[in-house]
Amino acid sequence: MYKGNKYISPAIIKRLPRYYRFLGELKSEGVERISSSELSKMMNATASQIRQDLNNFGGFGQQGYGYNVEYLYNEIGKILHLNKPHNMVMIGAGNLGSAICGYKTFPRYGFNILAVFDVDPNKIGSHIHDIEVHSMDELETFLDENAVEIVIVAIPTDNAFDVMKRLEKTHIKGVWNFAHIDYEMPNGIAVESVHLSESLMILNYKIANNDKTID
Amino acid sequence: MYKGNKYISPAIIKRLPRYYRFLGELKSEGVERISSSELSKMMNATASQIRQDLNNFGGFGQQGYGYNVEYLYNEIGKILHLNKPHNMVMIGAGNLGSAICGYKTFPRYGFNILAVFDVDPNKIGSHIHDIEVHSMDELETFLDENAVEIVIVAIPTDNAFDVMKRLEKTHIKGVWNFAHIDYEMPNGIAVESVHLSESLMILNYKIANNDKTID
Repeated sequence: MYKGNKYISPAIIKRLPRYYRFLGELKSEGVERISSSELSKMMNATASQIRQDLNNFGGFGQQGYGYNVEYLYNEIGKILHLNKPHNMVMIGAGNLGSAICGYKTFPRYGFNILAVFDVDPNKIGSHIHDIEVHSMDELETFLDENAVEIVIVAIPTDNAFDVMKRLEKTHIKGVWNFAHIDYEMPNGIAVESVHLSESLMILNYKIANNDKTID
Repeated sequence: MYKGNKYISPAIIKRLPRYYRFLGELKSEGVERISSSELSKMMNATASQIRQDLNNFGGFGQQGYGYNVEYLYNEIGKILHLNKPHNMVMIGAGNLGSAICGYKTFPRYGFNILAVFDVDPNKIGSHIHDIEVHSMDELETFLDENAVEIVIVAIPTDNAFDVMKRLEKTHIKGVWNFAHIDYEMPNGIAVESVHLSESLMILNYKIANNDKTID
């Protein structure tokens, strides 16, 4: 993407959530300024990498003076579009769906799960962490009436294709996919898939190669 | 890392699990050769990026001839150290731990969860997807007796620090961490943390910026 006339590479964008998380922790601890070498220790990255990354967001890291934590947190939050609340729903009232509904960090960043959807009649009407489970029949109506932006898909592979096809025709803006499929949505609906096996392979790589350059 | 005398950057390493997953699918469908442009369509990356990445693993992508799927799959598997089985245990018999115990892709890659550990007396002795839940008191003995390499930590933040401290003193090789903490292990124990909030922020970025260059 471009910020002003400066190009910010995908590699840097992908590191922004991590900066945002650490800066958020510093902010909540009342830290006002931090040097690249302190951040470097916290984040297990080189100070020069951190300076290179953060220099994209304005020259506010001054030698011996450090970065303004709150300013940087807000700037990165703007790029990640975290400065307003986002309505979500969960599809799948299984273990994974239930686990995600219980994450307290998501509401803190403005991501609110309004409802859970499932096909199991025994689950419909029950609550998961105070969120009501609805029938899948009500999905499209609910999405429209509640201006839902993001749908979380936490169901088995076999059913995931059909659900993705239904979502294609809705007005949502993004799918956060935990099913073991790769599905391309039409223009206007972004997809981010969590493939846990990839993370496990990276751990395995780190173990085998003792490579500390992978964060 | 170096392969032979060729340096392979962390950015490429991080993309290897994705290549491995797609190549594994092609292999199981009986596909023998694939061109960078076909892979590019499947993986939503440019063909030139794919050629650049894969050229690190030998010059076996010939113009108009394509890559040998099985060879490439095996080469990447070796780098990721997936050519032997890996013993794991799960700490936490909650929703997330249960969901991960049910993933069928992990055993397919040689990752086997041998036992689950929890502090809840009501859960100890029960089974999650045929895996027995043990008392946390038995953890260290079990790790030693079963040559466990990887411990999966799927418990609330509050308890995670104490568990990490216990794991520091064991002979395991890696921690796959789902707790919302960043914990540095001593040399010899690798850590890979899954911070789901970071993935959700990237989805949000994609939605806000309509940026298709982020995979």
